[in-house]
Amino acid sequence: MSSISFKFYYDLLSPPSRALITFFRVANIPAEPIPIALRKGKLAFGVLGEHLTEKYRKEVSRFPTLPCINDNGFRLSESVAIVRYLKNTRGFDDFWYPEDPKAQALVDEYLSWTHNNIRMTSGLYFITKWRTPILTGQKADEKEVALVLATMKWTLHAVKIATWTPRLWLISTTR
Amino acid sequence: MSSISFKFYYDLLSPPSRALITFFRVANIPAEPIPIALRKGKLAFGVLGEHLTEKYRKEVSRFPTLPCINDNGFRLSESVAIVRYLKNTRGFDDFWYPEDPKAQALVDEYLSWTHNNIRMTSGLYFITKWRTPILTGQKADEKEVALVLATMKWTLHAVKIATWTPRLWLISTTR
Repeated sequence: MSSISFKFYYDLLSPPSRALITFFRVANIPAEPIPIALRKGKLAFGVLGEHLTEKYRKEVSRFPTLPCINDNGFRLSESVAIVRYLKNTRGFDDFWYPEDPKAQALVDEYLSWTHNNIRMTSGLYFITKWRTPILTGQKADEKEVALVLATMKWTLHAVKIATWTPRLWLISTTR
Repeated sequence: MSSISFKFYYDLLSPPSRALITFFRVANIPAEPIPIALRKGKLAFGVLGEHLTEKYRKEVSRFPTLPCINDNGFRLSESVAIVRYLKNTRGFDDFWYPEDPKAQALVDEYLSWTHNNIRMTSGLYFITKWRTPILTGQKADEKEVALVLATMKWTLHAVKIATWTPRLWLISTTR
């Protein structure tokens, strides 16, 4: 990849931020890191952070959310959209995101599916078991924890059987 | 688009199924419809339906989920992945999904964001207000309904301000 870089707004507390940081590092994609603090700011509907300010919405991310990039004035959030945009504008190794329509579709399938499954259920588990008790000072409701743990295990199991041997992880077309 | 067709598994109860049915109709994309009944089958973690059988997972969708297509043996679920796959393999009017990297990225941004926002919050509202009371015969908890209604309104408001005039809906790059 060329040395052309972009601004990268992230917080290590944010799972998709960590995914992009890891990806940029292993795929050797240069980005200018700008940390944003999700633990600061107001709490609304279980969401809090510096990114909920009017300034952030106007200057960084329209939705507003994290992670986000600014590529010479072009602002884009959502980790999946960012990876696809960088593939289309910079190009990087096919290994990370394949150009073959069927292989790409199977990666897209997982990247769509994960939002309301792995991401949602593991986030709910973390919030129920750890974040809410830390924020409120009250013990977690163990019945609720057991329920969100069971749904998280269910989604992890779904990935396991979807990608079972002899399938080649996500993109085997021989399944 | 050519007359090459594919199998399309759907249920009108499923919002992404309805989105694809509408899209196939307005964009004149021929598909062989195969209805699946979400209201039948077992209930697990708030999910129920014919698609939870071992047969469906093996023969239709690996995750397993709805909607899904089978394109001459290639099985793919998730409405976003399906639209992108059809664009890559058949091609259709740029109006529906633009090829320009920035315009496409802004559509991808919304299509990623919506999963845990519009889709999730409106789904929770429907489940809390209508589906659970119908399935259990018990009245909805109005406090819970008020909370999920508020979060749904919050996500609808986020779309409104993200696409405010003079922005041209999702894909204006002048924002």
